Amino acid sequence: MQDKPFSYTIPYPGFKPSRVDNHLQRHLSDLKGQFSNEKAYQTLLKKEDVLLYEVYEIKRPEVEGEILMGISIVHPGKVGNEFFMTKGHFHTILGTAEMYYCLHGEGFMVMETPEGDTAVEALAPGKVLYIPPRWAHRSVCTSRQQDLVTFFAYPGNAGHDYGTIEEKGFRKLIIDRGDGIEIIDNPSFNE
Amino acid sequence: MQDKPFSYTIPYPGFKPSRVDNHLQRHLSDLKGQFSNEKAYQTLLKKEDVLLYEVYEIKRPEVEGEILMGISIVHPGKVGNEFFMTKGHFHTILGTAEMYYCLHGEGFMVMETPEGDTAVEALAPGKVLYIPPRWAHRSVCTSRQQDLVTFFAYPGNAGHDYGTIEEKGFRKLIIDRGDGIEIIDNPSFNE
Repeated sequence: MQDKPFSYTIPYPGFKPSRVDNHLQRHLSDLKGQFSNEKAYQTLLKKEDVLLYEVYEIKRPEVEGEILMGISIVHPGKVGNEFFMTKGHFHTILGTAEMYYCLHGEGFMVMETPEGDTAVEALAPGKVLYIPPRWAHRSVCTSRQQDLVTFFAYPGNAGHDYGTIEEKGFRKLIIDRGDGIEIIDNPSFNE
Repeated sequence: MQDKPFSYTIPYPGFKPSRVDNHLQRHLSDLKGQFSNEKAYQTLLKKEDVLLYEVYEIKRPEVEGEILMGISIVHPGKVGNEFFMTKGHFHTILGTAEMYYCLHGEGFMVMETPEGDTAVEALAPGKVLYIPPRWAHRSVCTSRQQDLVTFFAYPGNAGHDYGTIEEKGFRKLIIDRGDGIEIIDNPSFNE
Protein backbone atom coordinates (compact mmCIF):
# COMPACT_ATOMS: atom_id res chain seq x y z
CA MET A 1 0.00 0.00 0.00
CA GLN A 2 1.39 3.37 -0.93
CA ASP A 3 0.60 6.63 0.74
CA LYS A 4 1.77 8.80 -2.12
CA PRO A 5 -0.56 9.91 -4.91
CA PHE A 6 -0.45 7.60 -7.92
CA SER A 7 -2.05 7.40 -11.34
CA TYR A 8 -2.83 4.71 -13.86
CA THR A 9 -4.24 4.63 -17.36
CA ILE A 10 -7.41 2.96 -18.59
CA PRO A 11 -6.60 2.30 -22.25
CA TYR A 12 -9.26 2.55 -24.93
CA PRO A 13 -10.05 0.02 -26.23
CA GLY A 14 -9.05 -2.82 -23.94
CA PHE A 15 -9.81 -1.16 -20.62
CA LYS A 16 -7.30 -3.21 -18.60
CA PRO A 17 -5.80 -0.61 -16.23
CA SER A 18 -2.03 -0.08 -16.36
CA ARG A 19 -2.03 -0.81 -12.62
CA VAL A 20 -3.83 -3.91 -11.34
CA ASP A 21 -3.49 -5.12 -7.75
CA ASN A 22 -5.98 -7.96 -8.06
CA HIS A 23 -7.56 -9.63 -11.09
CA LEU A 24 -10.78 -11.38 -10.14
CA GLN A 25 -12.42 -13.81 -12.58
CA ARG A 26 -15.88 -15.29 -12.12
CA HIS A 27 -16.99 -18.29 -14.13
CA LEU A 28 -20.38 -19.89 -14.62
CA SER A 29 -19.73 -22.33 -11.75
CA ASP A 30 -19.30 -19.37 -9.36
CA LEU A 31 -22.92 -18.33 -9.98
CA LYS A 32 -24.52 -21.68 -9.14
CA GLY A 33 -28.22 -21.23 -8.35
CA GLN A 34 -28.30 -17.60 -9.54
CA PHE A 35 -29.73 -18.08 -13.03
CA SER A 36 -33.44 -18.83 -13.28
CA ASN A 37 -33.21 -21.60 -15.88
CA GLU A 38 -31.38 -24.36 -14.00
CA LYS A 39 -31.56 -26.78 -16.92
CA ALA A 40 -29.96 -24.27 -19.32
CA TYR A 41 -27.35 -23.54 -16.64
CA GLN A 42 -26.40 -27.23 -16.29
CA THR A 43 -26.31 -27.76 -20.05
CA LEU A 44 -23.98 -24.80 -20.56
CA LEU A 45 -21.80 -25.78 -17.59
CA LYS A 46 -21.29 -29.30 -18.96
CA LYS A 47 -20.16 -27.76 -22.23
CA GLU A 48 -17.86 -25.12 -20.70
CA ASP A 49 -17.36 -23.31 -17.40
CA VAL A 50 -17.43 -20.05 -19.28
CA LEU A 51 -15.95 -16.79 -17.96
CA LEU A 52 -18.86 -14.47 -17.12
CA TYR A 53 -17.02 -11.42 -15.82
CA GLU A 54 -13.78 -10.10 -14.47
CA VAL A 55 -12.74 -7.26 -12.23
CA TYR A 56 -9.46 -5.36 -12.13
CA GLU A 57 -9.07 -4.00 -8.63
CA ILE A 58 -6.84 -1.17 -7.42
CA LYS A 59 -6.13 -1.94 -3.77
CA ARG A 60 -6.11 0.58 -0.96
CA PRO A 61 -6.46 0.19 2.81
CA GLU A 62 -10.04 -0.93 3.48
CA VAL A 63 -10.83 1.82 5.92
CA GLU A 64 -13.11 4.84 6.07
CA GLY A 65 -11.81 7.82 4.11
CA GLU A 66 -10.19 5.71 1.38
CA ILE A 67 -11.85 4.97 -1.96
CA LEU A 68 -11.64 1.58 -3.66
CA MET A 69 -11.65 1.62 -7.46
CA GLY A 70 -11.56 -0.75 -10.37
CA ILE A 71 -12.80 -1.83 -13.74
CA SER A 72 -15.59 -4.39 -14.15
CA ILE A 73 -15.96 -6.27 -17.44
CA VAL A 74 -19.08 -8.40 -17.95
CA HIS A 75 -18.87 -10.53 -21.10
CA PRO A 76 -21.80 -10.98 -23.49
CA GLY A 77 -23.82 -14.18 -23.41
CA LYS A 78 -26.91 -15.83 -21.95
CA VAL A 79 -27.99 -18.73 -19.76
CA GLY A 80 -31.30 -19.66 -21.35
CA ASN A 81 -32.85 -16.24 -21.96
CA GLU A 82 -31.08 -14.57 -19.03
CA PHE A 83 -28.08 -12.38 -19.76
CA PHE A 84 -24.64 -12.89 -18.21
CA MET A 85 -24.34 -10.94 -14.97
CA THR A 86 -22.27 -10.44 -11.83
CA LYS A 87 -22.97 -12.19 -8.52
CA GLY A 88 -24.14 -8.93 -7.02
CA HIS A 89 -23.85 -7.95 -3.40
CA PHE A 90 -24.81 -5.70 -0.54
CA HIS A 91 -22.06 -3.78 1.19
CA THR A 92 -21.25 -5.21 4.62
CA ILE A 93 -21.47 -1.65 5.94
CA LEU A 94 -24.93 -1.03 4.50
CA GLY A 95 -24.64 2.75 4.80
CA THR A 96 -22.06 3.05 2.02
CA ALA A 97 -22.72 4.14 -1.57
CA GLU A 98 -21.07 3.21 -4.87
CA MET A 99 -20.69 4.89 -8.24
CA TYR A 100 -20.32 3.37 -11.70
CA TYR A 101 -19.11 5.14 -14.83
CA CYS A 102 -19.97 3.16 -17.94
CA LEU A 103 -17.15 3.11 -20.52
CA HIS A 104 -18.30 0.55 -23.09
CA GLY A 105 -21.16 -1.74 -24.06
CA GLU A 106 -24.73 -1.83 -22.86
CA GLY A 107 -26.47 -3.28 -19.88
CA PHE A 108 -28.38 -2.71 -16.68
CA MET A 109 -27.73 -2.37 -13.00
CA VAL A 110 -30.26 -4.35 -10.96
CA MET A 111 -30.65 -3.02 -7.44
CA GLU A 112 -32.68 -3.57 -4.29
CA THR A 113 -32.77 -2.67 -0.63
CA PRO A 114 -33.18 -5.04 2.33
CA GLU A 115 -36.72 -3.61 2.66
CA GLY A 116 -37.64 -4.79 -0.85
CA ASP A 117 -37.43 -1.56 -2.87
CA THR A 118 -36.23 -2.32 -6.39
CA ALA A 119 -34.61 -0.25 -9.14
CA VAL A 120 -33.13 -0.98 -12.54
CA GLU A 121 -30.98 1.56 -14.41
CA ALA A 122 -29.71 1.28 -17.96
CA LEU A 123 -25.95 1.55 -18.57
CA ALA A 124 -24.37 2.92 -21.74
CA PRO A 125 -21.08 4.68 -22.48
CA GLY A 126 -20.89 8.11 -20.80
CA LYS A 127 -23.52 7.28 -18.17
CA VAL A 128 -22.71 7.63 -14.49
CA LEU A 129 -24.85 5.67 -12.03
CA TYR A 130 -25.09 6.53 -8.36
CA ILE A 131 -26.07 3.73 -6.00
CA PRO A 132 -27.00 5.28 -2.65
CA PRO A 133 -26.26 3.52 0.63
CA ARG A 134 -28.30 0.35 1.36
CA TRP A 135 -28.83 -0.76 -2.29
CA ALA A 136 -27.52 -4.19 -3.37
CA HIS A 137 -26.34 -4.13 -6.98
CA ARG A 138 -25.64 -6.52 -9.86
CA SER A 139 -24.57 -5.56 -13.36
CA VAL A 140 -25.97 -7.32 -16.42
CA CYS A 141 -24.47 -7.21 -19.93
CA THR A 142 -27.16 -6.96 -22.62
CA SER A 143 -24.82 -6.17 -25.51
CA ARG A 144 -24.98 -9.00 -28.06
CA GLN A 145 -21.27 -8.98 -28.83
CA GLN A 146 -19.59 -6.32 -26.71
CA ASP A 147 -18.37 -6.40 -23.13
CA LEU A 148 -20.10 -4.17 -20.59
CA VAL A 149 -17.24 -2.15 -19.09
CA THR A 150 -17.64 0.07 -16.05
CA PHE A 151 -15.31 2.02 -13.80
CA PHE A 152 -16.44 1.87 -10.16
CA ALA A 153 -15.55 3.60 -6.90
CA TYR A 154 -16.84 3.06 -3.36
CA PRO A 155 -15.83 3.82 0.23
CA GLY A 156 -12.83 1.85 1.51
CA ASN A 157 -14.69 0.43 4.52
CA ALA A 158 -17.76 -0.82 2.57
CA GLY A 159 -16.97 -4.56 2.48
CA HIS A 160 -18.92 -7.15 0.47
CA ASP A 161 -21.86 -9.26 1.58
CA TYR A 162 -22.39 -11.83 -1.19
CA GLY A 163 -24.22 -14.33 1.05
CA THR A 164 -27.59 -12.57 1.20
CA ILE A 165 -27.92 -12.52 -2.60
CA GLU A 166 -26.62 -16.10 -2.97
CA GLU A 167 -29.37 -17.20 -0.63
CA LYS A 168 -32.26 -15.03 -1.82
CA GLY A 169 -31.39 -13.88 -5.33
CA PHE A 170 -32.49 -10.51 -6.67
CA ARG A 171 -36.17 -9.60 -7.00
CA LYS A 172 -35.79 -8.63 -10.66
CA LEU A 173 -34.29 -10.42 -13.67
CA ILE A 174 -33.19 -9.09 -17.06
CA ILE A 175 -34.18 -11.42 -19.88
CA ASP A 176 -34.05 -11.55 -23.65
CA ARG A 177 -37.52 -11.70 -25.21
CA GLY A 178 -36.09 -12.05 -28.70
CA ASP A 179 -37.82 -8.84 -29.82
CA GLY A 180 -36.45 -6.87 -26.89
CA ILE A 181 -35.15 -6.86 -23.35
CA GLU A 182 -37.57 -7.29 -20.48
CA ILE A 183 -37.34 -6.71 -16.73
CA ILE A 184 -39.37 -9.38 -14.94
CA ASP A 185 -40.04 -10.51 -11.38
CA ASN A 186 -37.71 -13.32 -10.35
CA PRO A 187 -39.97 -16.41 -10.07
CA SER A 188 -37.50 -18.13 -7.73
CA PHE A 189 -36.82 -15.17 -5.43
CA ASN A 190 -36.44 -16.59 -1.94
CA GLU A 191 -38.04 -14.10 0.52
CA MET B 1 -31.87 14.72 -2.04
CA GLN B 2 -33.02 11.45 -3.42
CA ASP B 3 -32.47 8.07 -1.86
CA LYS B 4 -33.16 6.13 -5.02
CA PRO B 5 -30.43 5.20 -7.48
CA PHE B 6 -30.06 7.70 -10.31
CA SER B 7 -27.96 8.13 -13.39
CA TYR B 8 -26.78 10.98 -15.58
CA THR B 9 -24.83 11.29 -18.79
CA ILE B 10 -21.51 13.03 -19.38
CA PRO B 11 -21.71 13.94 -23.06
CA TYR B 12 -18.66 13.86 -25.29
CA PRO B 13 -17.69 16.46 -26.29
CA GLY B 14 -19.08 19.16 -24.01
CA PHE B 15 -18.83 17.26 -20.72
CA LYS B 16 -21.65 19.18 -18.99
CA PRO B 17 -23.51 16.44 -17.06
CA SER B 18 -27.21 15.93 -17.84
CA ARG B 19 -27.80 16.41 -14.11
CA VAL B 20 -26.26 19.41 -12.35
CA ASP B 21 -27.16 20.36 -8.77
CA ASN B 22 -24.66 23.20 -8.49
CA HIS B 23 -22.64 25.07 -11.10
CA LEU B 24 -19.62 26.74 -9.53
CA GLN B 25 -17.64 29.34 -11.50
CA ARG B 26 -14.31 30.75 -10.38
CA HIS B 27 -12.90 33.89 -11.97
CA LEU B 28 -9.47 35.49 -11.81
CA SER B 29 -10.60 37.73 -8.92
CA ASP B 30 -11.38 34.61 -6.84
CA LEU B 31 -7.69 33.61 -6.93
CA LYS B 32 -6.27 36.88 -5.64
CA GLY B 33 -2.75 36.35 -4.30
CA GLN B 34 -2.45 32.81 -5.69
CA PHE B 35 -0.49 33.54 -8.87
CA SER B 36 3.21 34.28 -8.47
CA ASN B 37 3.38 37.20 -10.88
CA GLU B 38 1.25 39.84 -9.13
CA LYS B 39 1.89 42.46 -11.84
CA ALA B 40 0.71 40.12 -14.61
CA TYR B 41 -2.29 39.24 -12.42
CA GLN B 42 -3.29 42.90 -11.98
CA THR B 43 -2.79 43.68 -15.67
CA LEU B 44 -4.99 40.77 -16.75
CA LEU B 45 -7.61 41.56 -14.09
CA LYS B 46 -7.91 45.16 -15.30
CA LYS B 47 -8.50 43.85 -18.80
CA GLU B 48 -11.01 41.15 -17.85
CA ASP B 49 -12.03 39.12 -14.81
CA VAL B 50 -11.63 35.97 -16.87
CA LEU B 51 -13.29 32.65 -16.02
CA LEU B 52 -10.53 30.26 -14.88
CA TYR B 53 -12.53 27.14 -14.11
CA GLU B 54 -15.96 25.74 -13.41
CA VAL B 55 -17.33 22.75 -11.56
CA TYR B 56 -20.57 20.87 -12.12
CA GLU B 57 -21.51 19.28 -8.82
CA ILE B 58 -23.88 16.38 -8.19
CA LYS B 59 -25.18 16.89 -4.67
CA ARG B 60 -25.64 14.18 -2.07
CA PRO B 61 -25.89 14.33 1.73
CA GLU B 62 -22.48 15.38 3.04
CA VAL B 63 -22.08 12.46 5.39
CA GLU B 64 -19.82 9.43 5.69
CA GLY B 65 -20.78 6.59 3.35
CA GLU B 66 -21.95 8.89 0.55
CA ILE B 67 -19.78 9.86 -2.43
CA LEU B 68 -19.73 13.36 -3.90
CA MET B 69 -19.12 13.57 -7.65
CA GLY B 70 -18.76 16.15 -10.35
CA ILE B 71 -16.99 17.45 -13.41
CA SER B 72 -14.19 20.01 -13.18
CA ILE B 73 -13.31 22.12 -16.23
CA VAL B 74 -10.16 24.26 -16.09
CA HIS B 75 -9.87 26.60 -19.08
CA PRO B 76 -6.60 27.20 -20.94
CA GLY B 77 -4.64 30.38 -20.30
CA LYS B 78 -1.84 31.90 -18.26
CA VAL B 79 -1.14 34.65 -15.73
CA GLY B 80 2.38 35.65 -16.70
CA ASN B 81 4.03 32.28 -17.29
CA GLU B 82 1.83 30.42 -14.79
CA PHE B 83 -1.01 28.31 -16.15
CA PHE B 84 -4.65 28.73 -15.14
CA MET B 85 -5.45 26.55 -12.14
CA THR B 86 -7.99 25.87 -9.41
CA LYS B 87 -7.84 27.36 -5.92
CA GLY B 88 -6.92 23.99 -4.48
CA HIS B 89 -7.77 22.78 -1.01
CA PHE B 90 -7.28 20.32 1.79
CA HIS B 91 -10.27 18.31 2.92
CA THR B 92 -11.62 19.50 6.26
CA ILE B 93 -11.59 15.86 7.36
CA LEU B 94 -7.93 15.32 6.45
CA GLY B 95 -8.26 11.54 6.43
CA THR B 96 -10.36 11.44 3.24
CA ALA B 97 -9.11 10.59 -0.24
CA GLU B 98 -10.23 11.76 -3.71
CA MET B 99 -10.04 10.31 -7.19
CA TYR B 100 -9.87 12.08 -10.55
CA TYR B 101 -10.56 10.53 -13.95
CA CYS B 102 -9.22 12.73 -16.75
CA LEU B 103 -11.58 12.97 -19.73
CA HIS B 104 -10.04 15.69 -21.90
CA GLY B 105 -7.08 18.01 -22.23
CA GLU B 106 -3.76 18.00 -20.47
CA GLY B 107 -2.52 19.24 -17.16
CA PHE B 108 -1.15 18.45 -13.75
CA MET B 109 -2.37 17.85 -10.25
CA VAL B 110 -0.22 19.68 -7.71
CA MET B 111 -0.39 18.11 -4.25
CA GLU B 112 1.10 18.43 -0.80
CA THR B 113 0.61 17.28 2.77
CA PRO B 114 0.54 19.43 5.91
CA GLU B 115 3.98 17.94 6.69
CA GLY B 116 5.45 19.38 3.47
CA ASP B 117 5.59 16.30 1.23
CA THR B 118 4.95 17.30 -2.37
CA ALA B 119 3.80 15.44 -5.48
CA VAL B 120 2.89 16.42 -9.03
CA GLU B 121 1.09 14.02 -11.38
CA ALA B 122 0.39 14.54 -15.07
CA LEU B 123 -3.22 14.34 -16.29
CA ALA B 124 -4.26 13.19 -19.76
CA PRO B 125 -7.39 11.51 -21.14
CA GLY B 126 -7.83 7.98 -19.74
CA LYS B 127 -5.66 8.60 -16.69
CA VAL B 128 -7.04 8.01 -13.21
CA LEU B 129 -5.34 9.79 -10.31
CA TYR B 130 -5.68 8.67 -6.70
CA ILE B 131 -5.10 11.29 -4.04
CA PRO B 132 -4.70 9.51 -0.70
CA PRO B 133 -5.98 11.05 2.53
CA ARG B 134 -4.10 14.15 3.79
CA TRP B 135 -3.00 15.50 0.37
CA ALA B 136 -4.14 19.00 -0.67
CA HIS B 137 -4.72 19.20 -4.42
CA ARG B 138 -4.95 21.79 -7.20
CA SER B 139 -5.45 21.07 -10.89
CA VAL B 140 -3.58 23.04 -13.54
CA CYS B 141 -4.50 23.17 -17.25
CA THR B 142 -1.43 23.10 -19.48
CA SER B 143 -3.27 22.53 -22.77
CA ARG B 144 -2.71 25.50 -25.06
CA GLN B 145 -6.25 25.56 -26.43
CA GLN B 146 -8.25 22.79 -24.78
CA ASP B 147 -10.02 22.63 -21.45
CA LEU B 148 -8.69 20.22 -18.82
CA VAL B 149 -11.76 18.13 -17.95
CA THR B 150 -11.83 15.69 -15.04
CA PHE B 151 -14.48 13.59 -13.32
CA PHE B 152 -13.96 13.49 -9.57
CA ALA B 153 -15.33 11.54 -6.61
CA TYR B 154 -14.64 11.83 -2.87
CA PRO B 155 -16.21 10.83 0.44
CA GLY B 156 -19.38 12.72 1.37
CA ASN B 157 -18.04 13.92 4.72
CA ALA B 158 -14.72 15.29 3.37
CA GLY B 159 -15.48 19.02 3.45
CA HIS B 160 -13.28 21.74 1.93
CA ASP B 161 -10.55 23.76 3.65
CA TYR B 162 -9.59 26.51 1.20
CA GLY B 163 -8.16 28.82 3.86
CA THR B 164 -4.85 27.05 4.42
CA ILE B 165 -3.90 27.27 0.74
CA GLU B 166 -5.17 30.86 0.40
CA GLU B 167 -2.82 31.81 3.23
CA LYS B 168 0.24 29.71 2.37
CA GLY B 169 -0.06 28.79 -1.32
CA PHE B 170 1.28 25.51 -2.68
CA ARG B 171 4.97 24.61 -2.47
CA LYS B 172 5.18 23.90 -6.21
CA LEU B 173 4.16 25.90 -9.29
CA ILE B 174 3.64 24.81 -12.90
CA ILE B 175 5.04 27.32 -15.36
CA ASP B 176 5.53 27.71 -19.08
CA ARG B 177 9.19 27.97 -20.06
CA GLY B 178 8.34 28.55 -23.70
CA ASP B 179 10.23 25.42 -24.76
CA GLY B 180 8.44 23.26 -22.19
CA ILE B 181 6.58 23.02 -18.93
CA GLU B 182 8.49 23.24 -15.69
CA ILE B 183 7.68 22.40 -12.07
CA ILE B 184 9.39 24.93 -9.80
CA ASP B 185 9.47 25.80 -6.11
CA ASN B 186 6.98 28.55 -5.28
CA PRO B 187 9.14 31.60 -4.43
CA SER B 188 6.33 33.16 -2.41
CA PHE B 189 5.31 30.06 -0.45
CA ASN B 190 4.38 31.25 3.01
CA GLU B 191 5.59 28.58 5.52
